[in-house]
Amino acid sequence: MTEGPVDDTERAARMTMSRIVEPGDPDACRLVHEHSAAALIERLPKGEHGTSKLTGWAARLPGACADRLAEQAAAVGARYLCPGDGDWPPGLEDLDGIESSGRDRRGGRPFGLWVRGDLPPSAWARAVSVVGARSATAYGEQVAGDLAMTCAEAGWLVVSGGAYGIDAAAHRGALAAGRPTVAVLAGGIDRLYPAAHLDLLTHIERRGLLLSEAAPGGSPSRSRFLVRNRLIAAITAGTVVVEAALRSGSLNTARWARDLNRHVLGVPGPVTSELSAGVHEMLRQHPEAVLVTAGADVVEQLSPIGEGLAPARSGVARPRDHLDPAAARLLDAVPLHEPVSARAIAYAGGVTLDETHALLAVLHRAGMVVLEPTGWRLAPLALHGQAPDPRTEGRPRPGAGHT
Amino acid sequence: MTEGPVDDTERAARMTMSRIVEPGDPDACRLVHEHSAAALIERLPKGEHGTSKLTGWAARLPGACADRLAEQAAAVGARYLCPGDGDWPPGLEDLDGIESSGRDRRGGRPFGLWVRGDLPPSAWARAVSVVGARSATAYGEQVAGDLAMTCAEAGWLVVSGGAYGIDAAAHRGALAAGRPTVAVLAGGIDRLYPAAHLDLLTHIERRGLLLSEAAPGGSPSRSRFLVRNRLIAAITAGTVVVEAALRSGSLNTARWARDLNRHVLGVPGPVTSELSAGVHEMLRQHPEAVLVTAGADVVEQLSPIGEGLAPARSGVARPRDHLDPAAARLLDAVPLHEPVSARAIAYAGGVTLDETHALLAVLHRAGMVVLEPTGWRLAPLALHGQAPDPRTEGRPRPGAGHT
Repeated sequence: MTEGPVDDTERAARMTMSRIVEPGDPDACRLVHEHSAAALIERLPKGEHGTSKLTGWAARLPGACADRLAEQAAAVGARYLCPGDGDWPPGLEDLDGIESSGRDRRGGRPFGLWVRGDLPPSAWARAVSVVGARSATAYGEQVAGDLAMTCAEAGWLVVSGGAYGIDAAAHRGALAAGRPTVAVLAGGIDRLYPAAHLDLLTHIERRGLLLSEAAPGGSPSRSRFLVRNRLIAAITAGTVVVEAALRSGSLNTARWARDLNRHVLGVPGPVTSELSAGVHEMLRQHPEAVLVTAGADVVEQLSPIGEGLAPARSGVARPRDHLDPAAARLLDAVPLHEPVSARAIAYAGGVTLDETHALLAVLHRAGMVVLEPTGWRLAPLALHGQAPDPRTEGRPRPGAGHT
Repeated sequence: MTEGPVDDTERAARMTMSRIVEPGDPDACRLVHEHSAAALIERLPKGEHGTSKLTGWAARLPGACADRLAEQAAAVGARYLCPGDGDWPPGLEDLDGIESSGRDRRGGRPFGLWVRGDLPPSAWARAVSVVGARSATAYGEQVAGDLAMTCAEAGWLVVSGGAYGIDAAAHRGALAAGRPTVAVLAGGIDRLYPAAHLDLLTHIERRGLLLSEAAPGGSPSRSRFLVRNRLIAAITAGTVVVEAALRSGSLNTARWARDLNRHVLGVPGPVTSELSAGVHEMLRQHPEAVLVTAGADVVEQLSPIGEGLAPARSGVARPRDHLDPAAARLLDAVPLHEPVSARAIAYAGGVTLDETHALLAVLHRAGMVVLEPTGWRLAPLALHGQAPDPRTEGRPRPGAGHT
């Protein structure tokens, strides 16, 4: 019934439906897909329905007028999309397979969407959602912005919810990369919420897309934020949670993503931050959730195998990396602070004394060892030859003059 | 050959061996376990060996004297332990199954250990190592200290390497809990290294144990730190890495732990910190590595199933948690900022108008909704009813007066 494009009568009926039912109402979604909105609306006033839900819809019907909704939408440059339209976002059909469960996770496959802005259909081929706490920390906003910018630069469409905090940072990161971004709203498409984001959302509309399931005039409510989350998860290949307290709404988006077999990614943060606790818990409890630390990780995770590989992390290059293996091995045998003879080093390193002399000369030229009156020891700069800890300032160093 | 306690001749021979071979040398460990140290030392001077390594040992033999080593040890209150002794730490035998590989991971099952201090053998039943960067951040030291304290309070023996940074914080955390702790040193047991930790290490000796494979007088070197790491991994049920740069020696300890089928745990940190990058990479690349955020997580992971469960994380309790389900459901239908009629709420909530009036009264008494001249809306405090973000200060709030 809904495979091909929708005709004008059905389109008008769906606009009306979007006004009289709660966005994402699973029964409404199912009934429209099964019977068409036109058929439903024709039956509603006739009282041929038994449930209180349909009675509610019927009571609202007189106040709903498709033409008036279309006018309200047109006034802000918005239009109504239905499945089968060329610019209908892909992925939403996967919601059909999901059993609505609990108050925090209900919502069917949408039968229509109000949109403002323009995106080429090809833009959806690589889409990622970046979501998180409204009351994000400066750390979270920085990471979300950088991560979104990297994803956008790599050709990924960044999708979020237009909210304060992480959402806004993600949108701004994509815009800063000169790329489009998509904000999925919980209220009517003609009501740019939150009002303080009027400029940001207007900018997103001009460069990308605003999208909502609610009819024009609809106001956001908690339940609408939750059903909105399923759209964010469904239209993207994966959801990245940057900061989330333990019961954050972003974790609800991540759960939708999991149920939809999308990638679920989380950015860790300080364990002392309550705003990272939800992400850490998600990473702990769900083995399929992947820890990511930057946009390159996200691109690698979401890209088809073999594409988009993040650069290998190998740490800071160290002088010893450039030594020939025999010299590097001998270096391990040179003590940190108390000089010893070349003979002792030869024993410890398991090489001949001649070889030891030759290799010590190499190491000496490289500044890795120093010769003192009583023998050889590591140069202070060589430290243990261990990890290059970037913050050694102000700390006593091994070999810096103690015993 | 090494199953039972070791006799005095063999014990003296092993002390001598600990002086003439590199600590952890896989060939030395294997040969002592296969043939006994006494047999090896008897053969060494006779030139019956072909390899240059044995030649090296033989050349060192004249300078090694068990009695003198025992005296050096006794001078600092140290003694020599062998496998089979009552206070020999359990777990080291698992090193037999590990193929030494690469320069960073070689070392056999030790044939003896120099120790200072005292621990009841039962203390080893629950031991955990907490390791990390020497040049840790204040964040890392705080987390390591708290985590070690929690583990110690729960009866876990905290083992570390006595180094600056995370190691020291872990030892101090355990001591602060009034519990013993173990430092495994890379140099001789009579040389408290680093010198700036003289007080800390002395304290550890008094309350717990210092332990080293190197003979008295031995100095630490890079290779000795690396072979030392295998002991830390082997004598504990799991290794927690708190902060580690990408090529930190702590990751070498974690790798030993993994090879030994011990638990591998990592504490995340800001993705902007180079000192957490190694931990994040470990958590990303090794699915068996578990993200932990506090001592309670560590205890839960290491405890037998069903014991030591960390308290469930449920976030901050919210007023809506205490509402009856019908009222909570109706609350979802109340708009955030623009008041609507009780009738509209009844529709959105899918309940009768009478029931809506009754529930709105309940919500009103609970301070969750406010009645304005044009209808009902959420009370500012109820926000979206979403996650309790702990840092909402200074941010525009939904419903705080914007359109």
